[in-house]
Parts: sequence; structure tokens; C-alpha cells
Amino acid sequence: MPNFKPKAKSKVVGSLAACLFARRGHLVDLYEFRPDIRQTTASRGRTINLSISTRGRKALARAGLERRVLEFAIPLRGRMVHLPEGRTTAVPYDPLGDQFRSLLPIADETQARSREITVGIDQQKECYHDNARTDNNTRVDVRTELTVGADGAFSAVRRRMLHRQFDYEQRYIAHGYIELSIPPVDGEFAIAPNYLHLWPRGDYTIVAMPNQDKSWSLTLFMPFSTFDSLDCPQKLVDFFTDKFDDAIHLIGREKLIEDFFRNKPSPLISIKCYPYHVDDRAVLIGDAAHAMVPFFGQGMNAGLEDCLLLDELIGTMPMRHALKAYTDLRWRDAHAICDLAIYNFQEISSLVTKRRWRLRRAIDNSLHCVLGARWMPLYQSVCFTTTPYRECWDKQRSQDHVRYIHLLYFSLCIKKT
Amino acid sequence: MPNFKPKAKSKVVGSLAACLFARRGHLVDLYEFRPDIRQTTASRGRTINLSISTRGRKALARAGLERRVLEFAIPLRGRMVHLPEGRTTAVPYDPLGDQFRSLLPIADETQARSREITVGIDQQKECYHDNARTDNNTRVDVRTELTVGADGAFSAVRRRMLHRQFDYEQRYIAHGYIELSIPPVDGEFAIAPNYLHLWPRGDYTIVAMPNQDKSWSLTLFMPFSTFDSLDCPQKLVDFFTDKFDDAIHLIGREKLIEDFFRNKPSPLISIKCYPYHVDDRAVLIGDAAHAMVPFFGQGMNAGLEDCLLLDELIGTMPMRHALKAYTDLRWRDAHAICDLAIYNFQEISSLVTKRRWRLRRAIDNSLHCVLGARWMPLYQSVCFTTTPYRECWDKQRSQDHVRYIHLLYFSLCIKKT
Repeated sequence: MPNFKPKAKSKVVGSLAACLFARRGHLVDLYEFRPDIRQTTASRGRTINLSISTRGRKALARAGLERRVLEFAIPLRGRMVHLPEGRTTAVPYDPLGDQFRSLLPIADETQARSREITVGIDQQKECYHDNARTDNNTRVDVRTELTVGADGAFSAVRRRMLHRQFDYEQRYIAHGYIELSIPPVDGEFAIAPNYLHLWPRGDYTIVAMPNQDKSWSLTLFMPFSTFDSLDCPQKLVDFFTDKFDDAIHLIGREKLIEDFFRNKPSPLISIKCYPYHVDDRAVLIGDAAHAMVPFFGQGMNAGLEDCLLLDELIGTMPMRHALKAYTDLRWRDAHAICDLAIYNFQEISSLVTKRRWRLRRAIDNSLHCVLGARWMPLYQSVCFTTTPYRECWDKQRSQDHVRYIHLLYFSLCIKKT
Repeated sequence: MPNFKPKAKSKVVGSLAACLFARRGHLVDLYEFRPDIRQTTASRGRTINLSISTRGRKALARAGLERRVLEFAIPLRGRMVHLPEGRTTAVPYDPLGDQFRSLLPIADETQARSREITVGIDQQKECYHDNARTDNNTRVDVRTELTVGADGAFSAVRRRMLHRQFDYEQRYIAHGYIELSIPPVDGEFAIAPNYLHLWPRGDYTIVAMPNQDKSWSLTLFMPFSTFDSLDCPQKLVDFFTDKFDDAIHLIGREKLIEDFFRNKPSPLISIKCYPYHVDDRAVLIGDAAHAMVPFFGQGMNAGLEDCLLLDELIGTMPMRHALKAYTDLRWRDAHAICDLAIYNFQEISSLVTKRRWRLRRAIDNSLHCVLGARWMPLYQSVCFTTTPYRECWDKQRSQDHVRYIHLLYFSLCIKKT
């Protein structure tokens, strides 16, 4: 069993699955093309910080790993919204005190072109075998009884399933992202710690997550067309001065130009598929099964929850039935969180700046405080419960009419005063 | 230039594209993994007959091939519907006389597992090159300026585009198909020729297309679960006696059992993607760009229409712009016909048996006769015009309110009489 450290997005889910399978007495081999991230320095420009919440923590707890992982995490109590006029306003995640944790910033080198592990299905041998291309570019054939594909959005295991009866959808959104950073000031965080900072400007949005060295990792999301139009330092500075005036001072003008032009913007993909298994021979988990855009902070949490479900099922029935049950129980929830993640971009990019939205959120939170689990706003139920994603969304819809009556009532009160 | 013969579904589109490129002075190399179908006997059980209509004919005419191809075709004036009670009723395709032609039955060997041609993108050389695996299983590297991927639903050219910014969706429907046949009787067609025969029974549907040897190729569409349940000859015969009593006598009991159990049912896939090109280096046409279920008879026609559009664009602008324009002009229409093909299963499997639907169709046809192109029913505009598919669908929707008023009026008239 490898020493488990949550430093690589696409390694967390696979590592947990390996731990849980091993705990059930299976002999587990882990294949990884990329170098051990503990021995490499994080590559710049391909980093999106990870946030872990209830679902992920519960899954880690199953393997007795929750405390060790959270050692590396910084608590986030809410969002700090940087409004266009320069003011900031704090929006807590959960009035009952639950929170996200920001894991260490880690290099996400999962680029399609650099991925070299291929996994083959050998029809004659009736078993999955992996052709792991090693460092010196030779292939190793490996026979396995079960292949667990935790190999990310561009999964090689999944690629071989495309030619079976397999529904698959990949969709790139119009936005790309680029990574920037805010250095520490006098050895301390330059902006209020324990918040996810947000600069919502509609189509252009910056999200900042804290690092343990007191710096901030910033992710700038913009349409590719806007990235293309900012083709020289002067245009970039003018754009930032117009849109993110307070951020430019935090980042530093020279640093901004350097970081912005170092890498090309990365695309954001959303992937749904069905089913997740092939007989009792292969199964997909994490991004390989459901890659999502990062706007709900649920990518890793959903992957860890996959492991938990799979582990529970394997404990109660034979492998073939367990894998089928895993697909049957999981696909609707996975499709729902992929859609919710796209929907949530609207929230973080513009809704948070709207008074009407903040009012709605306040109503939701107050009802939640009074009624507890009987009134669960969408955001809370997705991030701070283990209610199936699909059910979270259905409940939100059924609560909407009550919410609108309250909103109308409050709006009338405000107009009167 | 190879001798062009329309004997293989997945070869028709690529062959026409090759002809049209050659006519514009390009040096064309054709790569085909499968053996020359003119030298092989048609393999049983993987055949869906091809039907050609206005769009396909217009595209063939551009290369001066229409007449040569139609030599092999049998005209189809309409559908002959075999109703559950045993009666038959003819539904003409077009009151103005336009018709489908059924091309020769041809073996469709496009099975994912047997496809061995791979096409690679060499990032360094900045050109597409094909690794054509030859008969003795060695690879040949070929450098091309432009790769035209006409390599079917499981396109290898498209597979290499998946890792670029490329939206892709593949969806299997719940139905599979199996091929049966009706032999000639005394050297003549056993059922009325010049019609597409249809046994619509909701979830279970048979479509029959005539062959030049006076036999009929039947395709039985059913949910996979039904195929699975018919696991012995007695169950099969009971099922056919219940559902397709008149067909069982035409096929022959022994022949039915033999053909049914010879092959596993084949799945039906629907594929949409975007974009269809990579710079000026690669472009997708035909099923590689838009595989569709066969219920509208437009699969090959849409592919041939791709060639026509591409040829027109290449004639008026540089390659890079032409390929971009091809994607921009084509994707909405291709997505529309993929959706229409799924929608049309409803029509051929159950609507045609409904009196209300036949009334609606009669109204549509009468209005079309009076108003000509100003009143174009969906079926006619898709099959017998070259109006863009998307526009056909939009027009259908805008005409629907007029259609309902007429339907109401006729219904009232019928009730009165």
C-alpha cells in the first residue's frame, strides 16, 4: 500500500479505492504514469486547488484517513465576494457552521497529450489487461481480474469501453482558465484567510484559494475569445484595471503579466457516461466516470463518494452484481452533479453580486436554521450532507414555490420601508 | 480513381468525396481496411439496405454518377403498412410522385472490433498521418496534407480529435436489430414490390426492403430485453405468431429460426459531435461526423450531402476557411437529422397504425398538393427537398398550429357523418 498523501487531484480517488479494496483483502496493484508528485515540484499554471467537504470526508473516514488528510487542509467558512465597486461582502457557506477545507495546491498535470497509460481489453483472454507504457516508452502487459479506472477525465480505461454499448458525452464550455497567484505580505495572507475569495464579473470571474505558505492560488475563468483578445501586456493591464482593480494590486503588475502569458488557457470539460462497469472486469470511478467543471467544488468529493458506495456494495454481494448495482445507483447522481456544476457557474459569476440572490440566500439560511434538515438549501445539501445529488436537486425544485412566496413577501417589506 | 460502385454503406460517402476532391485537382489516396466488397460475398446478418433520395441523388449528380448508381436501385413509391389485424394499407411517400430508391443490399461489416485502421496526429510534424494497419498487421505511416475521415460511426480519425476541444455525444438506443429475409416465390417478389413494407407493432417493428434477386431483406427492431427473452425456437415462433402472423408464412418457420439465432442482435448508435474539422488538416464526413439510427432513411443521404457542401466551399475559399465554414454550416443540420431519426421511430413503429396520424398525413399531403413548396410536410421536406434539416424541423413546428385546426375540423366532420 503506498503512503497515501492527497497531493494530486487525480490520485486521491484512485488511492482511496486502492486502500478500500486492500482492506477487503484484495491484492491491489497501482499503476501511475506520472512521476510521484511528492518528489516533484508543482508545475505552474495547471493547478486548481481542491476543496473537500462532507462527502469526501466521510469517504476518507471509512479508510481511517480523514484526520491525516485534513492535516494539510485550511478551513473555509464561506465566500468573500469582491464586488465591482471595491467593497467586499462575506457569504457564509452554512449558517450551522459546516465548512469546506482547501487541500494543498497541487499540480494537475492531467493533460491529454501527456497521458500515456493505455489499458486494453483482451477479448480472447476474457480479462482486462493494462499496457502500462513505462518511462522508457516500452509497454508492460498486466493481467488483472478487475481494472478500476480512476484515470481521470481522459481515462484510457473508459476509452476502451466506447466501443461497447456505452453512452458517452463530453462537452467543453466556452470558458477556459489560467492560474495566477497572490504572494504573502510580511509572511501573512494578503487577504482575509478562511474564505474562498471571489471576484464575480459575469463572464470574467476570479476564484482564490489559500495555500499553506500564506500565498493564494487564483483561477481566472474567461471565455476563450477574451483570452485571445488580450494579446499584449498593455491590453491585459487595462482589462484588469477595468474589471479587477483591487486584485491587480494584490497580484502585482509584473507578476500578473508574467503568469498570464506563461501558459495558454486550459479548457474545462464536462463528461457523462453510462454504464460505469464492464461485467465484473472493469469499473470507472472519479473523473473517469464523471468529469465536471470546478464550480461546485464537488469533483473530488463525488469521486471519493464513488469509492464509498463501491466499497459498501462489494461488501454485500458478488463482484458482478456489485458493479452493476454501482452503475445503477450512481449514474443519475453523477449526471446531476455534472449539470449542477455548470449551473453553479452562473451563481459564482454573477448571482452573488445581485441583491435579490443574497436576499433569497438569507431566507434559505434562516429557514434552514429554524427547520434544520427539513429545509435544506441546494448549496448546503450538495456540499454539507450526503443526500444523493439527484435528490438535492429534486428537493430544491419542490421547495422553490415556498421560496418564491417568501421572496415576494420580503420584497414587499423592503419596498415599504 | 477507383471504379465507383455503391455497394458498401460506409464506402459510398468516402468514395464520392474522393471523386469530388479529385475533380478539383487534388491528389487523392483512398485507405480502406476492409476487403473490396466487389470481390466478397455479402456477409449475413449485418445488412441494413440503403435508401437514396433527393439529397443523395443531387450529390451524386455533382460527380456525374447519379445515373450509374441508380442502375442498381429499385424505386420505392411509399410504405405498405401491415396492420395487426392482417390488412395492408399503402401510404405514398409523396403525393407529387417523388420516391426513394433502394440500393442493392450490401454487407455492413463496420463492427467496432474488426476495425483496425488507425489514424494518428503527429504533433511535431504538424500534419495528420495515417497508420494504416495492413493485412499482415504491420503499420504504414502516411503523411497527408488533409485527412478526410469518412470512416464511419466508429471513426478512427474522430477518435484522435476527442482530446482536442471537441464536443462529442454517443448514445445507444434501447432497441437492437436482427436481419431476416423473405425468399422469392416462383422467381417473383412475394409481396408487392416498389414499396417499403412495414410491420409496426409499437416496440417491435419489421421493415422490409426489396433486393434485385426478388428477395426481401427484413430488419426486425426490438428492445434488447425482448431479444434476450426469446431464447428458444418455440418462444420465437409463439412471439411471431402473436405479433407478425402474416410475416411468419412469408419468411418460413425454419428459415426464421435459423436466421434469428445465427447472429446476436446489433446495437443502434446515434452520434453527434462538434466541430468537424481540425485547422486545415482533417475533416469528418458521413457517419464519422453524424451517425444516426436508420429510421428516416437519411444516413447515407446526409453523408453525400456533406460531400456536396464541402465541395462547394472548397471551390470558393482557401482550405482552412472552407473547413471552418463546413463545420459552421453543417453541425446544426446534422444534429437535427440525428434527433429526427430517433423521433421517426415513433412514426414507423406505432403512429402509422393510428387513424388520427393517417388523417393528419392526408391533410398534410392535400395541402402540399394545393400549395406546393409553400406547405411542405416534415417527411417530404426531409426526404424530397434539399432544405437544410434544421429548417425542415423549424418549419414543421411553425405549421403545427394550422395543422391542428385542420385536424380538429376534419375530426368534427367525421364525427358528424
